[in-house]
Amino acid sequence: MTESESESGSKLVSCRFQKAPVSELHTVFSGQPYSVSVLKVGYCVNQADGTFTADGTITLITGPKTVLVDTGGPWDRDFLLTALKDRGLEPTDVNVVVGTHGHSDHVGNLSLFPTALMIVGYDVSEGDTYRATGLSAGRVYCIDEHVSVVPSPGHTGQDVSVQVKGTSAGTVLVVGDLFESCSDEDSWRDLSMNIVVQEVSRQEALNIADVIIPGHGLPFRVLRN
Amino acid sequence: MTESESESGSKLVSCRFQKAPVSELHTVFSGQPYSVSVLKVGYCVNQADGTFTADGTITLITGPKTVLVDTGGPWDRDFLLTALKDRGLEPTDVNVVVGTHGHSDHVGNLSLFPTALMIVGYDVSEGDTYRATGLSAGRVYCIDEHVSVVPSPGHTGQDVSVQVKGTSAGTVLVVGDLFESCSDEDSWRDLSMNIVVQEVSRQEALNIADVIIPGHGLPFRVLRN
Repeated sequence: MTESESESGSKLVSCRFQKAPVSELHTVFSGQPYSVSVLKVGYCVNQADGTFTADGTITLITGPKTVLVDTGGPWDRDFLLTALKDRGLEPTDVNVVVGTHGHSDHVGNLSLFPTALMIVGYDVSEGDTYRATGLSAGRVYCIDEHVSVVPSPGHTGQDVSVQVKGTSAGTVLVVGDLFESCSDEDSWRDLSMNIVVQEVSRQEALNIADVIIPGHGLPFRVLRN
Repeated sequence: MTESESESGSKLVSCRFQKAPVSELHTVFSGQPYSVSVLKVGYCVNQADGTFTADGTITLITGPKTVLVDTGGPWDRDFLLTALKDRGLEPTDVNVVVGTHGHSDHVGNLSLFPTALMIVGYDVSEGDTYRATGLSAGRVYCIDEHVSVVPSPGHTGQDVSVQVKGTSAGTVLVVGDLFESCSDEDSWRDLSMNIVVQEVSRQEALNIADVIIPGHGLPFRVLRN
């Protein structure tokens, strides 16, 4: 996949898609019956001492069901509780928690939601009861007709994304680290367990999404030529 | 690797090792300077309705540093707090938390330990600051001269085990789902992301450990012929 910058600042991908960053103020995609709100925009910043600071994007989907996609790192516990409370929600109001993959900056706060349907990578459980799904065979897991969990392996091998249809911005896809950010061509391959598989998952994401919410950056629009 | 049952009930592995289950009462391996205690023995049980119940083994290592290896599922929060309290420990007393891999029944309670050094698979962090290690290149990460984190990929691709030297039972290795249980030949391959890689990791574990604490069963001894 090649990428070049256009005059507008958007990114040209494979001549078929352009990736266009949204404003920092535009982190809510309202809709019926579901709206998508980015509670915290993830980041990944290299530090002078060779370490890097990182946190995963935390996203809330509200509608007939309340779905939290990724929970940030363990240090986000109080932030997450406050962000939910600001929206009138207690942890027990969250029906479904999705961890897009099992890295510490994405699954740091699962313990806040012991009563939720828990989807972490390809594993789906309620309490300690796990059920078989088709995720590992590449099949979608439907939460309802508007919200579904889509296998999107590559970054770790068992990654999932959450697809929300019918927002004002069209189909929103919350992808974890399938995309690190809008402009991640310099970074995603270095962090990938399987570049070839992840490349396929990225193309599939670009095919189905109007907006992508990545793991470590602002949402971006997918524009089709 | 072939396996056959001997008259004593122990398991013969590759003619070089025997795996011998310990008593259900024998879940503490004391030593100087470090002791290893299994706080909860993991399980995995098929149910009549096609689901299965599962939880990961939770292990505490005490000595100059306090190290928790795996945190169970989100439903284990209260159990874990009580188990620590019974040993005179608050969550802030835990210096290092290791998630052997990023499955929900192993990393369900990371949020209880926001101040600990956090090692989940190959990722090592303090708060949101991540540091480079050699884990992904196959190198050991030393906590001190007695306790180290060893890459043991296969089950998920980024698994680690924790090695404790010098207990009364010799070297104890806490392996997550590298081994499901003492007698896991019928199950581990079905749950493996890479059988060939995991087979190598299992052999390496059998080479270095006197006792193995698996992810979903009782500890077992490794006997050498």
